[in-house]
Amino acid sequence: MTKSYLDLVNECDRFPYYHDDPTFYISHLQNYHFFKVTGCPSILGYICNSVVEKFPWPEDCWSIDSANRTVTLVTAPGATPSQRSELVAKTLAEAVKRNTFEILNGWRDELYPVYGPKGEFLLELERSASPLFGIVSYGVHVTCYVDDADGIRIWVPRRSKTKQTYPGMLDNTVAGGMSTGERPSECVVREAMEEASLPEDVVKANAVPTGCITYLYVRGENAGGETGLLQPEVEYVYDIPLDASVVPKPCDSEVEAFHLFTVEETKQALANGEFKPNCSMVLVDFFLRHGIITPENEPDFLEISARLHRRLEFPTASHALAN
Amino acid sequence: MTKSYLDLVNECDRFPYYHDDPTFYISHLQNYHFFKVTGCPSILGYICNSVVEKFPWPEDCWSIDSANRTVTLVTAPGATPSQRSELVAKTLAEAVKRNTFEILNGWRDELYPVYGPKGEFLLELERSASPLFGIVSYGVHVTCYVDDADGIRIWVPRRSKTKQTYPGMLDNTVAGGMSTGERPSECVVREAMEEASLPEDVVKANAVPTGCITYLYVRGENAGGETGLLQPEVEYVYDIPLDASVVPKPCDSEVEAFHLFTVEETKQALANGEFKPNCSMVLVDFFLRHGIITPENEPDFLEISARLHRRLEFPTASHALAN
Repeated sequence: MTKSYLDLVNECDRFPYYHDDPTFYISHLQNYHFFKVTGCPSILGYICNSVVEKFPWPEDCWSIDSANRTVTLVTAPGATPSQRSELVAKTLAEAVKRNTFEILNGWRDELYPVYGPKGEFLLELERSASPLFGIVSYGVHVTCYVDDADGIRIWVPRRSKTKQTYPGMLDNTVAGGMSTGERPSECVVREAMEEASLPEDVVKANAVPTGCITYLYVRGENAGGETGLLQPEVEYVYDIPLDASVVPKPCDSEVEAFHLFTVEETKQALANGEFKPNCSMVLVDFFLRHGIITPENEPDFLEISARLHRRLEFPTASHALAN
Repeated sequence: MTKSYLDLVNECDRFPYYHDDPTFYISHLQNYHFFKVTGCPSILGYICNSVVEKFPWPEDCWSIDSANRTVTLVTAPGATPSQRSELVAKTLAEAVKRNTFEILNGWRDELYPVYGPKGEFLLELERSASPLFGIVSYGVHVTCYVDDADGIRIWVPRRSKTKQTYPGMLDNTVAGGMSTGERPSECVVREAMEEASLPEDVVKANAVPTGCITYLYVRGENAGGETGLLQPEVEYVYDIPLDASVVPKPCDSEVEAFHLFTVEETKQALANGEFKPNCSMVLVDFFLRHGIITPENEPDFLEISARLHRRLEFPTASHALAN
């Protein structure tokens, strides 16, 4: 069945909105506990009740409050980020030892940061565990394209069939998650080389930051591991217009091959559901910004625009350099 | 005092968000009644309680429910849009006769549409009265710019000192409200000629639809008329890259003069608060899309991106042509 652009957005931004049905929203939230840390008033993520029940929470550093549905990492008031991170790491090591969660079989050995309400760094935890805590994760997604007399064409890679997540699906030209301490532009340069063999000078000379997309994903079957886990995401979006002579090539084993798709071919692959869910969102955003999706050819234009830029109910990072 | 980009966004998107403080949000809503029409379950706008109290609502066609805080236009079940519009017009005529609302002194003789949850046209009402009902209004905002060896420069008009609203402030190159039945691209062509003397062929050949901004404005003093009225708005955003030889010129009396601002001059004027509030939002969106505001130079990048694309809690229009 052909998917509309709104279908694609719905597959990625899947958590309900308060205003659509306040009663349903408030009752739906009962399925989650709120992840907190001592001394910070903010909710840092939503943890599925099923995860709360299964987790072997060490009692010396976690407080579970079933009435208020909070899971709090308990530390001394002046705890440092590394002290908090160590406690979380210890908790995760125990879960791995007991083989509690399938999702931890995809251990990445990359650390993802968690921020407080003023953008302050609170702690970091193993990437594959982030959906267990429902924390916000950050990445970059890059659309490399050629725009010449033949019109716009987009560089589209196909993910390796052996990749752990979304094997064989189409992807954005370059994309990757940002570990603790990495800046978006650094991540673009690193991933462009790792995934598409694009040299740093070409990337730096041509990459344009063009905003971001934000959404609240609920993990489904092809994400791997437990389903229903929450994954609020920020993807910083970059356009890289390239001369037709510059050809991305697979470098690591994550990408099978790159294809230069016309806009029509890209639309068709989107409608067929061939793209990884959040890559569809990035292309829909690209289409909106480049006059391909317009208020006059897309009945759900306003809903799509708002849903690509969900205001997350968790504190988020600031990657701005200190002035 | 210098204004940050987030200050400018806060001046335009001024209505609270549920998630920031659910208790406050729900109590704040008590200051409003919900505008409804017979047969449609949706809330079409928020009406200030002070407006509900002052309005000379004809009892034969309005039902005020103070317990549920609704103001319902009561019609037979199968009423047509023109029947509903006539009842609203009659109500407004009475308010004008009694001089109930200062805002109606700015009578525009333009009709703004109201839509139901499936995008169906429900009724239309006089433009100047739309903030009394808190209904969503629609417009287009166009940034004409030159991008050549000298970098990006933006065509910035200054509003006439005699204009009723925001006199003397800076504006987007071309902007205007969409009356019932008008499409965004038609509105761009019409306003580009009326406000900037740009010929239709130049506009059609160069205008690129690049998305939209959406926000919930609360009218302040320089908007004219009563303050505190709600104005949820959708502004379809267009970029028009122009050759340096094409120079916009005032045509009607609304614009005093056009200036070609560098990006630095534009930033300075924004920081000085010289732009009309929603025109600031459009320029912030332009800056985001063109790599001028980036995740690494703007600490409030994520908040700004989400706030430019507020998901309005009212039904909105679809301007897509029927397929």
